[in-house]
Amino acid sequence: MSKELTSRAADYSQWYNDLVIKGELADYSAVRGCMVIKPYGYALWENMRDQLDRMFKETGHVNAYFPLFVPKSLFEAEEKNAEGFAKECAVVTHYRLKTDPNNKGKLIVDPEAKLEEELVIRPTSEAIIWNTYKSWIQSYRDLPILVNQWANVVRWEMRTRLFLRTAEFLWQEGHTAHATKQEAIEETTKMLDVYAHFVEHYMAVPVIKGVKTANERFAGAEDTYCIEALMQDGKALQAGTSHFLGQNFAKAFDVQFLNKENKQEYVWATSWGVSTRLIGALIMAHSDDQGLIMPPRIAPLQVVIVPIYKGEESKSIIDNKVEALIKELKALGISVKYDNSDNARPGWKFAEYELKGVPVRVALGLRDIENNVVELARRDTKEKSSVSMDGLADYIKNLLEEIQENIFQKALNFRNENIREANSMEEFVSILDNQAGFVAAHWDGTSETEDKIKEQTKATIRCIPLQNKLENGACVFSGKPSTQRVLFARAY
Amino acid sequence: MSKELTSRAADYSQWYNDLVIKGELADYSAVRGCMVIKPYGYALWENMRDQLDRMFKETGHVNAYFPLFVPKSLFEAEEKNAEGFAKECAVVTHYRLKTDPNNKGKLIVDPEAKLEEELVIRPTSEAIIWNTYKSWIQSYRDLPILVNQWANVVRWEMRTRLFLRTAEFLWQEGHTAHATKQEAIEETTKMLDVYAHFVEHYMAVPVIKGVKTANERFAGAEDTYCIEALMQDGKALQAGTSHFLGQNFAKAFDVQFLNKENKQEYVWATSWGVSTRLIGALIMAHSDDQGLIMPPRIAPLQVVIVPIYKGEESKSIIDNKVEALIKELKALGISVKYDNSDNARPGWKFAEYELKGVPVRVALGLRDIENNVVELARRDTKEKSSVSMDGLADYIKNLLEEIQENIFQKALNFRNENIREANSMEEFVSILDNQAGFVAAHWDGTSETEDKIKEQTKATIRCIPLQNKLENGACVFSGKPSTQRVLFARAY
Repeated sequence: MSKELTSRAADYSQWYNDLVIKGELADYSAVRGCMVIKPYGYALWENMRDQLDRMFKETGHVNAYFPLFVPKSLFEAEEKNAEGFAKECAVVTHYRLKTDPNNKGKLIVDPEAKLEEELVIRPTSEAIIWNTYKSWIQSYRDLPILVNQWANVVRWEMRTRLFLRTAEFLWQEGHTAHATKQEAIEETTKMLDVYAHFVEHYMAVPVIKGVKTANERFAGAEDTYCIEALMQDGKALQAGTSHFLGQNFAKAFDVQFLNKENKQEYVWATSWGVSTRLIGALIMAHSDDQGLIMPPRIAPLQVVIVPIYKGEESKSIIDNKVEALIKELKALGISVKYDNSDNARPGWKFAEYELKGVPVRVALGLRDIENNVVELARRDTKEKSSVSMDGLADYIKNLLEEIQENIFQKALNFRNENIREANSMEEFVSILDNQAGFVAAHWDGTSETEDKIKEQTKATIRCIPLQNKLENGACVFSGKPSTQRVLFARAY
Repeated sequence: MSKELTSRAADYSQWYNDLVIKGELADYSAVRGCMVIKPYGYALWENMRDQLDRMFKETGHVNAYFPLFVPKSLFEAEEKNAEGFAKECAVVTHYRLKTDPNNKGKLIVDPEAKLEEELVIRPTSEAIIWNTYKSWIQSYRDLPILVNQWANVVRWEMRTRLFLRTAEFLWQEGHTAHATKQEAIEETTKMLDVYAHFVEHYMAVPVIKGVKTANERFAGAEDTYCIEALMQDGKALQAGTSHFLGQNFAKAFDVQFLNKENKQEYVWATSWGVSTRLIGALIMAHSDDQGLIMPPRIAPLQVVIVPIYKGEESKSIIDNKVEALIKELKALGISVKYDNSDNARPGWKFAEYELKGVPVRVALGLRDIENNVVELARRDTKEKSSVSMDGLADYIKNLLEEIQENIFQKALNFRNENIREANSMEEFVSILDNQAGFVAAHWDGTSETEDKIKEQTKATIRCIPLQNKLENGACVFSGKPSTQRVLFARAY
């Protein structure tokens, strides 16, 4: 092995950190709670971003860019939203440094350059955007506005984890404005569907679509829809949210429009976002003790080719053979790297690309060329096979699709096996402590019960599934009547 | 006309603002000095970014992402760099807001949440990046590092202008690390060439490649290379810079590597960047009193089709005809919009797309369909012509290339006509005051002379052109001997 990895069984949390750092996705930085996204991790994010961006544009959205800063007076305009984020706001108070008169070569904040009004670094952009929309919207003809923004945001978290919870993270945030409530709700669920499709189809992570309870709702939303995924340790992870904001922000920023009946009306709003947190979900859904497992459709690198040779002469024969294969793979739109560097031995390279989760590895030596074959290794199952060079590029193309499907199926089976019904608090706790996963239980619909269950078990209601089966039952905690089970879990 | 525009002759500066705002590229925001980039402006930036990103990757670079924040102690490590940016730094001092006990519903900065060390919002990322590179680089095998970042940066400017000078702006910043001085210098000029190619070939703005004098150099650089463009009002605009940083940052952050001779050596560095400022250059290089003129290769929209009809029946006949044309244009990779909305009359639409600078407008009515023709209008020359529908898509494809070339030639001719030699301060001032443009003059090579000329004329040395003709002469200010002319101008 090139780099020692902690196993999941030994220390799941350390295993995760090892994958992120030794897999060269990201690194800690000199800034508390902020990470450096390394080239391999950023290439993954670019692939995710490009797919999402294409899907946003296909559903009629356009991109724009709004300021990083939110003046405090705007930030506090929508009270619930402000209250929800106030405790994690980085605040700019000064706009200049000056040389320290007492310490040569050092700088201090210039007290004379204090801002009249503090600027909050956006933890989310509803405030600055709705303040802007006010001047964009006069009549129903100006609606809908279907805008998305790719940006960095800052939420000052006390306990941070690479990708999962960082003070600064990258994300997209859609902010739409509509003439009717119904249209806004349709937008909210449409974007939830886009997220679900992306996460399942590209990231190969199965998700449950649902709606949040009042406790877990986005601050300032009327309803928060979400997609919930299950990690290998049985904890849930919220992979994306789509909010129906009602007229809350329109009222806070006085955004009215003249409707078709010539009457002034407040605008209806949605917002929706996914972030670099998805990379954390990807890692924890698929990877194993040998390293990352990248789903082919968003893998930064889909195929790596490693030559097995002794001496320059045999190397150049292999180089020639590989050149043609690379051309064919690229013609099929497959990303490929030929690692014929002399810095490391094949065994080291094998372990390195396994750690990085490259879906398909091709190895070949002189004898393989004589036999017109290569050795193919797939990362997901670690199966190796000897495959003919004839039609190899097409074979690999199909194999990549097969791997994509297999990774998804494996995660789906795991997820489905880990939804368990509990009909008493005893069962509830037993499932959480011994098996983890989702617990499907009846709930009386009150925040108080949810709070108490959370206190006792650290589990929260992840969502009320959209496609829920209705059945009469009794709340697992209070015994009060309930008409459906909701999904509880301990969560990231 | 749909919207009143100020003419260049009446008020050049207002004309510029009118184009930005009425052309819907950007808007002022609630945050002092920060702008909102509107969807049409952002689509332009996306096209520019995508081309540049492709060129960076073709030259071996990869993207990464580093923190928005720079701890003050890191920021001040490279003293010249810190000194250069200290006066325009936004500083985060607190990480929490709390409810104002004296003012219900309002928030105040929580004095208990004061950071131990202030965080500077990156005005540029050398400090945070070189602090990171320290852990990435041990041996010559780790070099070169060829990393680029797309990000937002903040420079607290006192006098701001949309796109040209804003407190927050979007840019890319390349940061490379090399084992030898020569390799770093080669990287610096290679990226200058990439910028020049992009700006000339895609933005159709001719540039002069040169090197900055010590006065105009990037704080912390050994040499700053630049591309300089000329705007229609005769003022110059720095369109991109590429810096050879020597070992300054390696020394400030103690980044050493074991070279091939097994000796510790400081790493050599470059950095290079272009920003949303380029959009300002694009506007001022090409546009006219009717609005923007977008170069086809990066235009957000290349072709607009406007139907001329009376009544639903004739509209649907035109709709059908246009559908086929749109398919053909899209198959050729041409972006096209069919504006058959009933909200506005054709004349209004014509003016609107002229204002937005769409390169080609197609108009057609029932009689045109009978005659198998359309009316084509090109934005650059405003020429209209009747063109056969047979082979129309190919005709438009060629026309777009012709427009691209024509826009560039026009700007090139203007630029070349506006480089004038001055052999005395009298001539120098006269050219600046009466004709503007670049003044090619001998200079004695001292910062003192450069300062004095700037004081007297507001002109700075834009660059010492790379392809300069050597000739003996006397400094236009001091009379001291000089071996080449340098380019002065008043600049944005």
